[in-house]
Amino acid sequence: MGKMRALDYFFYPKSIAIIGASRDPEKVGHAILHNLVNGKFKGELFPINPHAEYVLNLKCYKSLKQINSDLDLAVIAVHAEEVPKELEECGAKGIEAVIIVSAGFGEIGNTKLAEKISKIKRRYKKMRVIGPNCLGILNTENSVDTLFLPEYRLKRPEKGEISFISQSGALGSAVLDWASMQEIGISKFVSYGNAMDIDESDLLEYLAQDKNTNVIVMYIEGVKNGKKFMQSAKKFARKKPIIVLKGGITAEGMQAVKSHTGSLAGSADVYNAVFRQAGIIRAENLLESFDFARVLSKVAKPKGNRVQIITDGGGYGVITADAAIKEGLRLAEMEEKNKKFLRKIFPSYAVLGNPLDLTGDATMERYKAAAEAAMRDKNVDIVILILLYQVPTLNSDVIDIIAELSNRRAKPLVVISVGGAYSEVHKRALEREGVVNFSYPENAVKALKALIDYHKKK
Amino acid sequence: MGKMRALDYFFYPKSIAIIGASRDPEKVGHAILHNLVNGKFKGELFPINPHAEYVLNLKCYKSLKQINSDLDLAVIAVHAEEVPKELEECGAKGIEAVIIVSAGFGEIGNTKLAEKISKIKRRYKKMRVIGPNCLGILNTENSVDTLFLPEYRLKRPEKGEISFISQSGALGSAVLDWASMQEIGISKFVSYGNAMDIDESDLLEYLAQDKNTNVIVMYIEGVKNGKKFMQSAKKFARKKPIIVLKGGITAEGMQAVKSHTGSLAGSADVYNAVFRQAGIIRAENLLESFDFARVLSKVAKPKGNRVQIITDGGGYGVITADAAIKEGLRLAEMEEKNKKFLRKIFPSYAVLGNPLDLTGDATMERYKAAAEAAMRDKNVDIVILILLYQVPTLNSDVIDIIAELSNRRAKPLVVISVGGAYSEVHKRALEREGVVNFSYPENAVKALKALIDYHKKK
Repeated sequence: MGKMRALDYFFYPKSIAIIGASRDPEKVGHAILHNLVNGKFKGELFPINPHAEYVLNLKCYKSLKQINSDLDLAVIAVHAEEVPKELEECGAKGIEAVIIVSAGFGEIGNTKLAEKISKIKRRYKKMRVIGPNCLGILNTENSVDTLFLPEYRLKRPEKGEISFISQSGALGSAVLDWASMQEIGISKFVSYGNAMDIDESDLLEYLAQDKNTNVIVMYIEGVKNGKKFMQSAKKFARKKPIIVLKGGITAEGMQAVKSHTGSLAGSADVYNAVFRQAGIIRAENLLESFDFARVLSKVAKPKGNRVQIITDGGGYGVITADAAIKEGLRLAEMEEKNKKFLRKIFPSYAVLGNPLDLTGDATMERYKAAAEAAMRDKNVDIVILILLYQVPTLNSDVIDIIAELSNRRAKPLVVISVGGAYSEVHKRALEREGVVNFSYPENAVKALKALIDYHKKK
Repeated sequence: MGKMRALDYFFYPKSIAIIGASRDPEKVGHAILHNLVNGKFKGELFPINPHAEYVLNLKCYKSLKQINSDLDLAVIAVHAEEVPKELEECGAKGIEAVIIVSAGFGEIGNTKLAEKISKIKRRYKKMRVIGPNCLGILNTENSVDTLFLPEYRLKRPEKGEISFISQSGALGSAVLDWASMQEIGISKFVSYGNAMDIDESDLLEYLAQDKNTNVIVMYIEGVKNGKKFMQSAKKFARKKPIIVLKGGITAEGMQAVKSHTGSLAGSADVYNAVFRQAGIIRAENLLESFDFARVLSKVAKPKGNRVQIITDGGGYGVITADAAIKEGLRLAEMEEKNKKFLRKIFPSYAVLGNPLDLTGDATMERYKAAAEAAMRDKNVDIVILILLYQVPTLNSDVIDIIAELSNRRAKPLVVISVGGAYSEVHKRALEREGVVNFSYPENAVKALKALIDYHKKK
């Protein structure tokens, strides 16, 4: 891990105290301990509960004071009224990383209690706090997991290169669960709640310097400190893609943010201007934010916006061409020598244009020849392969052919995998080989547009 | 079935001849017979193959002439060059419905052969033809199925109320397979290929009058006869929703259409004007076309565009409000009496606005009370329920609560089901109860916008 940085104790703790580790399975503190015990976290766990000897077969401590060893991270999951006392003990013990999961502070108008814990925090300079009113952290690398939701309701995604910061805990948990279903790998997830100390800008800076994070996705409703956010974003956005989905971009949405988090959403125009200036990539919706992230984390850098579409179904070629043009991409015109080469080996009815239509009896050889020609063609910046697995002449070898080409990373290559269950199997296989797939042409070209724009501005 | 209409023999045949029913599993004619034999088609099957005694344990006929009984439908699946002879025999035998699956005519520039079969068709007035170069028909009601793709590559969707007409066979097959995976029910599917006789307008007229079809989705690249299409659409579009996805709406897409089908795509502006005038609903992409179809076939008619959003996750409420406003919907302001009622039974931290945020400890009772209030509220035209199943206080009873409310059809109700595998189970259960679900807020509000617009224009 090299030199420890300020927030490392949150993401790479060797020991965790769970304050409020209840024996009652319905309690948040129980769920957190349960997930850590049953997960793959290799460090030491210290349940704190004055009323229990053991929780989940672990020796229980009455308070932090009873623990002699140093603690890297404390997770506080007690009633809001008891949080000040526990936070005070964390400070006194010299713990540098504290996650307050408990809710019941500023977000429900309890500013007095919010101020009380802020005051405690200020007295312990080295203690950093995430929360309150949050889910905390998931680090898929070492299974640090403070999410208080059971695995069957929130399946943890696999290890990946995308990190995700969410102001909304509920939205964050739903997205993680969704990502796991989609087999989208995640490196680190943070739900930071009310951000009494650590805010979105701190997390952005940390993840921007995290070697296991390739791309950062953020869901934010309002930033705590606009100037700080701008500085952090400007410093890193052109080195590592930062994709932001902003909640509250309409007057009505802003009103909802106000009721929901108590924070001001700020005008959409201001945010858009800030994002643009800072080099942040804006996503219009959740699916788009992860579409962008997948392409930006896995696909090679394009030299331009000329795409070659290769398809085994004419109709899909047409709608993909339409979508590409609508998004401002251009259709490539392949070099004459490559066209000539393909014309020799292709049947007369295959259409050697753009889209290049291999037709409904497309063989593996045709796919390979066309894709290879496009990958080496000087007039082609990006290759889009459309795969209709319904075609009986295709078999699973197509996965190896495409993976091999894509992994050379000579130029961007993405696949549009269409159909149902049978296609899904192949799509997943391709994804596992590192090839980025889309189910719909529009999503593919929108993500490619984001890829082009990002690298152009860099 | 009542009185037989002209195209009924295609969709409700009691007997089918498969001309070119090969013993070779790789041949199209074999696949068609195989699917009919293994499916649930209850009528008689007549394989025609001069070189075989039996195919798939069915007695084989050397030619149509050998069959004494009347035939409702013939499917021709032989080499292009042999099609004229077989079509001639169909005419001579008095068969009124013929599907020519075979390719190799106008679409690859073989206009001579195309003209030859057209000439034969003209001599037999009562004989109607679908194709050539098509997949033909799937009728989920009686398992009439001429698609030559095996079930494992193209899973047939369940019975439903949406009918789908596709100019592109490959696109149609991919969409059917996708629909089956999504559990979207289909009534009838037609791939009509080169449309030498029956074209999109004939099919539109037929399905518009089909009592088992609630909504028609069409993928078209170019219409054969603009005036005829306009007349058919005008006559029916305001009685039954017709959703069209037009391939070739950019110059590049039009060029692709030209290479692909040999037909002219026509300018996007002209098509848009025609669609608008005829009352056709235009979809921007495939997912949208079926999103629209699901809502239009299953959801009650809205009185206006005021939506009430009910959520158990604040962030999702925010982005749904944003999406609704962006699409031109309005957020409802619930009646004071209903708000008062809810305020009494809700905890103080629940947000009784719009979105109505039941928060992360939403109980079943809160869900029920809020949804019922919105359903009876005079200021609410449409109810959007957001379900984050991660919330531990929710259980599967929520399905019954929502289904019961939705099925009263007092006003439109749709659900945004978010999350992964666990959510998916509930989403599917809701769908099976007749409740329309979406995975993403944008898709839900776009579909609701289409619903509102359709009923406004009627």
